[in-house]
Amino acid sequence: MGRSRCNSGASVNLAELIDTVPDFPKKGINFRDITPLVASPVALQFIADKLGESALAAKAEVIVAIEARGFLFAGPLSVTKNLPCYLARKPGKLPKPTVSESYGLEYGAAELHIHRDTPLSGKNVFVVDDVLATGGTALAAAALVEQLGGIVCGYGFVIELSGLPGRQKLQGQATVRSLVKLDA
Amino acid sequence: MGRSRCNSGASVNLAELIDTVPDFPKKGINFRDITPLVASPVALQFIADKLGESALAAKAEVIVAIEARGFLFAGPLSVTKNLPCYLARKPGKLPKPTVSESYGLEYGAAELHIHRDTPLSGKNVFVVDDVLATGGTALAAAALVEQLGGIVCGYGFVIELSGLPGRQKLQGQATVRSLVKLDA
Repeated sequence: MGRSRCNSGASVNLAELIDTVPDFPKKGINFRDITPLVASPVALQFIADKLGESALAAKAEVIVAIEARGFLFAGPLSVTKNLPCYLARKPGKLPKPTVSESYGLEYGAAELHIHRDTPLSGKNVFVVDDVLATGGTALAAAALVEQLGGIVCGYGFVIELSGLPGRQKLQGQATVRSLVKLDA
Repeated sequence: MGRSRCNSGASVNLAELIDTVPDFPKKGINFRDITPLVASPVALQFIADKLGESALAAKAEVIVAIEARGFLFAGPLSVTKNLPCYLARKPGKLPKPTVSESYGLEYGAAELHIHRDTPLSGKNVFVVDDVLATGGTALAAAALVEQLGGIVCGYGFVIELSGLPGRQKLQGQATVRSLVKLDA
């Protein structure tokens, strides 16, 4: 059909594939828009390769993907590194009994859920999302993992917003990997 | 690290990886839960291969992924078949100006948006989501594609709920591919 799987191993300038939209979702926020990045299969594979390397270096056995944009990167990572993927979702989305965590966002507040029967007990878990900002969402995901007896061995983000306290909040025993650093 | 990309080509019994949760999100609905399927990298790759074959057979040039569970399958498909992926999202999520469509769901009503500058004009577009039920969500995505001058050449779903009018609504010029048929 004239198309083939995009090659692993290519280096990609991810920063060129991130748009900045001022004043979204509210005045004063420079929103980092990943639309061009998601439209690049080569970039998606590059991200899967790089975050996957960090996940395996941290001895991850499974990944937890944060709704919704984390889902875009979790699939390729899961497939590329053969890591089972579980979902941390917004309220009302998961059909079975869940455990939940409330958290503050860069703008607003929210709640994250995971199925209570997710088999994370004793497992090394790598948490995946698109952006590390204040770290609130990722910390909530980590708290879900810990509620279920899992160990957060690392976090993987495409973008890290510098000038916000995300990295300091997350760092401890866990690896924090981001692929592009941008101003908040 | 002892892990390698899962192989393409394996056959997977997807039906065994779908749970049924009765009375979610409301009484009388048998919710089809894809949690075990998403936790299987081999299944994710199998889905990417199969939907990807249909996309290429339909001469797709790009895919449009529907939030949120469509995102889980769109990434591996995009990477596997080298097809750029664009996002159809819920209200308030996309930072740039959008076009939108309202639609009815199996339970409730909703709205889908896509960035107005998405380069779909004249392009063959393959729409990706997890479940085909009444077809409302997929038809809304198709209307967005058409608003932007794109041609919907096909639809790809992991699950098709038989006994609902989804397939009849979508079929016309476009291919409708689903990988598992289950009762609604």
